[in-house]
Amino acid sequence: MSAPFSTLDAFRSLLANCVAPDQVALDGAAARNGQLTKPPGALGRLEDMAIWYAGWRGTARPEIAAPQVIVFAGNHGVTAQGVSAFPAEVTEQMVINFQHGGAAINQLARTAGAKLSVHALELDRPTADFTQGPAMSEAELVTALATGWEAVAENTDLLVVGEMGIGNTTAAAALAAALYGGEAEDWVGRGTGVDDAGLATKARVVREGLAANPGRGGLEVLRCLGGRELAAMAGAIARARSLSIPVILDGFICCAAAATLEAAEAGALDHALAGHVSAEAAHAALLGKLGKEPMLSLGLRLGEASGGALAINILKSAIACHSGMATFAEAGVSDG
Amino acid sequence: MSAPFSTLDAFRSLLANCVAPDQVALDGAAARNGQLTKPPGALGRLEDMAIWYAGWRGTARPEIAAPQVIVFAGNHGVTAQGVSAFPAEVTEQMVINFQHGGAAINQLARTAGAKLSVHALELDRPTADFTQGPAMSEAELVTALATGWEAVAENTDLLVVGEMGIGNTTAAAALAAALYGGEAEDWVGRGTGVDDAGLATKARVVREGLAANPGRGGLEVLRCLGGRELAAMAGAIARARSLSIPVILDGFICCAAAATLEAAEAGALDHALAGHVSAEAAHAALLGKLGKEPMLSLGLRLGEASGGALAINILKSAIACHSGMATFAEAGVSDG
Repeated sequence: MSAPFSTLDAFRSLLANCVAPDQVALDGAAARNGQLTKPPGALGRLEDMAIWYAGWRGTARPEIAAPQVIVFAGNHGVTAQGVSAFPAEVTEQMVINFQHGGAAINQLARTAGAKLSVHALELDRPTADFTQGPAMSEAELVTALATGWEAVAENTDLLVVGEMGIGNTTAAAALAAALYGGEAEDWVGRGTGVDDAGLATKARVVREGLAANPGRGGLEVLRCLGGRELAAMAGAIARARSLSIPVILDGFICCAAAATLEAAEAGALDHALAGHVSAEAAHAALLGKLGKEPMLSLGLRLGEASGGALAINILKSAIACHSGMATFAEAGVSDG
Repeated sequence: MSAPFSTLDAFRSLLANCVAPDQVALDGAAARNGQLTKPPGALGRLEDMAIWYAGWRGTARPEIAAPQVIVFAGNHGVTAQGVSAFPAEVTEQMVINFQHGGAAINQLARTAGAKLSVHALELDRPTADFTQGPAMSEAELVTALATGWEAVAENTDLLVVGEMGIGNTTAAAALAAALYGGEAEDWVGRGTGVDDAGLATKARVVREGLAANPGRGGLEVLRCLGGRELAAMAGAIARARSLSIPVILDGFICCAAAATLEAAEAGALDHALAGHVSAEAAHAALLGKLGKEPMLSLGLRLGEASGGALAINILKSAIACHSGMATFAEAGVSDG
């Protein structure tokens, strides 16, 4: 659908009026969980995830039949500062690789039984170098948010968003530093593989970006220090909330984009789980700020929605157990 | 196939002559991994797993098409000591639940695309109470090992083994204490959910079992303190090695059974990954003794092969990326 906002204030209002989980479904799912043929709590976090998912889907016995993975791609003016181990043209080359099925996310989405959508956002028009001023105008931000909003299929029952954008770990570090404070060094990492000098450059660029963009507030930070693909992820996550579609977050960049929503409206990420904790240095700290415990910790640091997609089958497994297992009464098993 | 051993010594000889991974395949897989369209190392542990799997399968570009999950069930004389929160008849009730598709493992195997096999081992004939002497005779152990050996389908390309057996966390704790030393309290846990008094009982029973069975060596320990389903898991893991089929280990009980193979022959578990670390208290320590880093940590403590089955899709994802992604040259992507 066409996004129901054309200004940032209208998007803010949507966030402020976001839906809550269904308490009847939560209660029903918790009751069902207690009757399944296993010792109480023996499925660990799978049980919590299943009840959580049931609440968002509004039914005590849900299924996951149509997960969607969306990768948004954007280019960043800040690459002129030498913040990445790869040249900026790799963003577009990787989009083509996604379209031809050659990337990790193609394989991960397929293994998860998820539909993969790829949206390239004006790759020939990088955002402005945020060391010189805002990365985007308000109109540019709204357009990117709307791209994300419109990318979510209405029949989806689980959403994973991810990104491709050379330079975007620097943007994500700047977002985190602006939202949570601390030193630039606390939030930068090696991204695709920069050396120590590259890491120092990233910290300098983040500091300069913060100095050049003193404004605060989640969406203003997203506009000034983010990028089109980060804004599109935020728009998609907000759209999923409006449709009561649970979300699995990917890595550092995805979580930094998501964090701007939470900063704009506390609770805006209640419908989102952390798919994994990546090897990007500050991701664990960022998850801590968001209060999210990751489902996986396998040292990934790829982006592209890869960690989120990898976690889909974990949540599918949780839902399959919850909705498909027999109860003690049905199976004639003695309840301890 | 019929097991090629009818004595414990013959089984020992098979272990001593177990196959190694294919170095050419390992080298080829490592070379391929370095050419895929991602920054070096960006898929983290998925890359290591894919290369490892390739080595065991003898091809640089393997696939996982036919995973098998096997659950072995057995009963334990030691339940007479009051070591479980559930009555012993639950073992058979749960086997029927497996056969009717009502248990967690049915859902987890299905979600993983794995064939599920269930083998109940003489449930009407529990092992002897090991506080009074050996749980099994040598003939009983060999029969159980052979059941496991024969349960592995030859066309399987990934094996997960698990168990059902009321009382078997106590047997597993006794195995670990016998193999690695320490106090009984270091190895017992709450199993299906015993209280503090139950936990103290389990520690006492383990101590009495060790005192009543002073023999050592991996397979002798398995005979004296194990159980039929534990021996069957060991037999299946050994059979998988003989067929170069990689294995994903399940939780504490599975790993304790597997540890007897490693104690009998160092390296006997080189073809096995740890699927998860469970909430059973001593599982993390046991994995440490085995030198295995778990793929998942989600607080499961169910057994039934559940954690191993949950990990199948992680390994499938690793292999899908490794064998299905494009190289930089194929995709025309600039290599950093």
